[in-house]
This record gives sequence, structure tokens and C-alpha cells, in this order.
Amino acid sequence: MEENIRAIQDDYPDDFAWCYGCGRLNEHGYHLRTYWNGDQTETVYEPKEKHIAIPGFVYGGLIGAIVDCHGTGSASLALHRRNGHEPGSGEAPPRFVTGSLHVDFLKPTPQKVLLKAKGTVEEIHPKKWKVSTEVYAGDVLCAKGEVIAVVMPTTFAQSK
Amino acid sequence: MEENIRAIQDDYPDDFAWCYGCGRLNEHGYHLRTYWNGDQTETVYEPKEKHIAIPGFVYGGLIGAIVDCHGTGSASLALHRRNGHEPGSGEAPPRFVTGSLHVDFLKPTPQKVLLKAKGTVEEIHPKKWKVSTEVYAGDVLCAKGEVIAVVMPTTFAQSK
Repeated sequence: MEENIRAIQDDYPDDFAWCYGCGRLNEHGYHLRTYWNGDQTETVYEPKEKHIAIPGFVYGGLIGAIVDCHGTGSASLALHRRNGHEPGSGEAPPRFVTGSLHVDFLKPTPQKVLLKAKGTVEEIHPKKWKVSTEVYAGDVLCAKGEVIAVVMPTTFAQSK
Repeated sequence: MEENIRAIQDDYPDDFAWCYGCGRLNEHGYHLRTYWNGDQTETVYEPKEKHIAIPGFVYGGLIGAIVDCHGTGSASLALHRRNGHEPGSGEAPPRFVTGSLHVDFLKPTPQKVLLKAKGTVEEIHPKKWKVSTEVYAGDVLCAKGEVIAVVMPTTFAQSK
């Protein structure tokens, strides 16, 4: 169903659509897509067989990657909306980088279950947004995360 | 050179050697290996072409995954040493899970540069260890991380 919802990553300019986590042009990546569901943001992902910690359970690095890209995508959705735009409106959305990533792992995350990240976005500075995320495997809350997302500096591609 | 140093993951029992981040038996994974360098722990990884955020820079999810597995591996090294053992001594090392993961991204992490995580391990409870990590790309400190690693409950594989 969520494939039919326009995601913010669908509108990233091509130059910024290569992220292994959420870039639609990275053929090897996760292709994470983040969209509005009411006042919350959502990203879903079904872990692959290989993404295990021990057989049957998802490895933490994948959860971290989901929280990370869901965080920058959610911040982009929120600032885009504050600027009067929605995904699909034709305007290029603002692009964020991750300032910090935090994940509390609450329960082992079962494999072969659709993961859903649900985000709440809060502006803490015009260029800095906090995204609080809950990661569910089915109905089970498995992890809580927080990302501080920062508007991407225009010098990013030139920096080192 | 570090391939010649015995890593803690080399000694994980086969049942616990499937992690996408650090399992030697996961043919698709990163095969992260964590070993002592003096009183610090180290894990190195060379990002693949596909692991980009934007062309030329590593995506944050990979950094998070490295900090995560480096954290549990470092805790395992430290508790193993406290128990009187070193990698290669023939004893199965204790296995940890991640309680929490935190990463502060300090600089864009250039691609095609060997990443090195350097960890400092501190016992904060007999079953809970804190691993403070710095991630370098060459000589450049790109991220700082912290993992709270918890001795894996014996019920882990049965829990949900």
C-alpha cells in the first residue's frame, strides 16, 4: 500500500538520490522511503535473509540505518511542509545530513517481519530538527531512536 | 596487517557467527573483526563503492553498523580478558548484544579510505559494558560513538 504514497525520497534531486539507505538510484541499497501518515512520518522495510544478528533476528546495524535515513527523510518532509510543499508538489525538498544517531534496542527484532519506523518531528533550530522514532516489527515495539538532522551545508560535496 | 591479528569474532561459536556486521559465516556481510591494540580495541573496514550517502562519502548507516559491532566485539574482548582469556586461547568468548548505540557524526566520511574504529572499554556493571569509539578515515576523526553492550541473555534465541 505504502508504495502508492509519495515519499520524500522520490523527490530528491538525482545528485542526492544515491544513498545506500534511501537513494532510489543506488541499485544495491535499501531504497527506504519516508512519507507522512497524519502528523507522523513512516518508513517500512522488510529485512533480507542476510540481515541477521543470529538466525531469526535482525542485526542492529540495519535498525540503525533505518532510524538514520528515516530521520533525515522525516526532517526533510517536515521542513518541506513548513515551506508550503508536499511530496509530489514539484519543488525539490531540502536535504538533511545526520548530526547524531541514537538507538535504544528494547527487544530482539524478529526477522521475516515487516519493520515500520514511526517518526515524530520537532524543530529545535531553523536548520536542526529532532526526529523521535519507534521501530515496530509487526505490533512489537523493538527499538526507539532519535536523530538530530541538520540541513545539508551547501559545501558538503566539497568538504572532507 | 590486521588480518594476522586474532580477532574476537574468529572465536565466536558457529551459532553466533552469522551477524551481517561481524559474522565470519555470513557470506554477504561486512566480516568486521575486532582485536586488541594495546589497551584499546580496533576494527577496520574499507567501505565498498555502494556504501555512499552522496558520491564520494560514506553513508551514516555503515558508520553506525561499524560502531555497533565494534562495540559488542570490544566488550567481548574485555570480559574475555577479565576472565583470563585472549583470542585464540581456545575458550569461547562471551557474546554481547547492543543495549544502545549512539553516534555523533563530526565530518563527512570520505569513501575509498580505510576506516578504523578505536575503542575504549569500561565496565559499568558485571553484565553491562560501555565502549567509547572514535572512527577515523585515515587520520581524520569523522565520528564518535558509544555502545552499551549487554551480556547476551541465554534466552535470547528463544525470545521474541
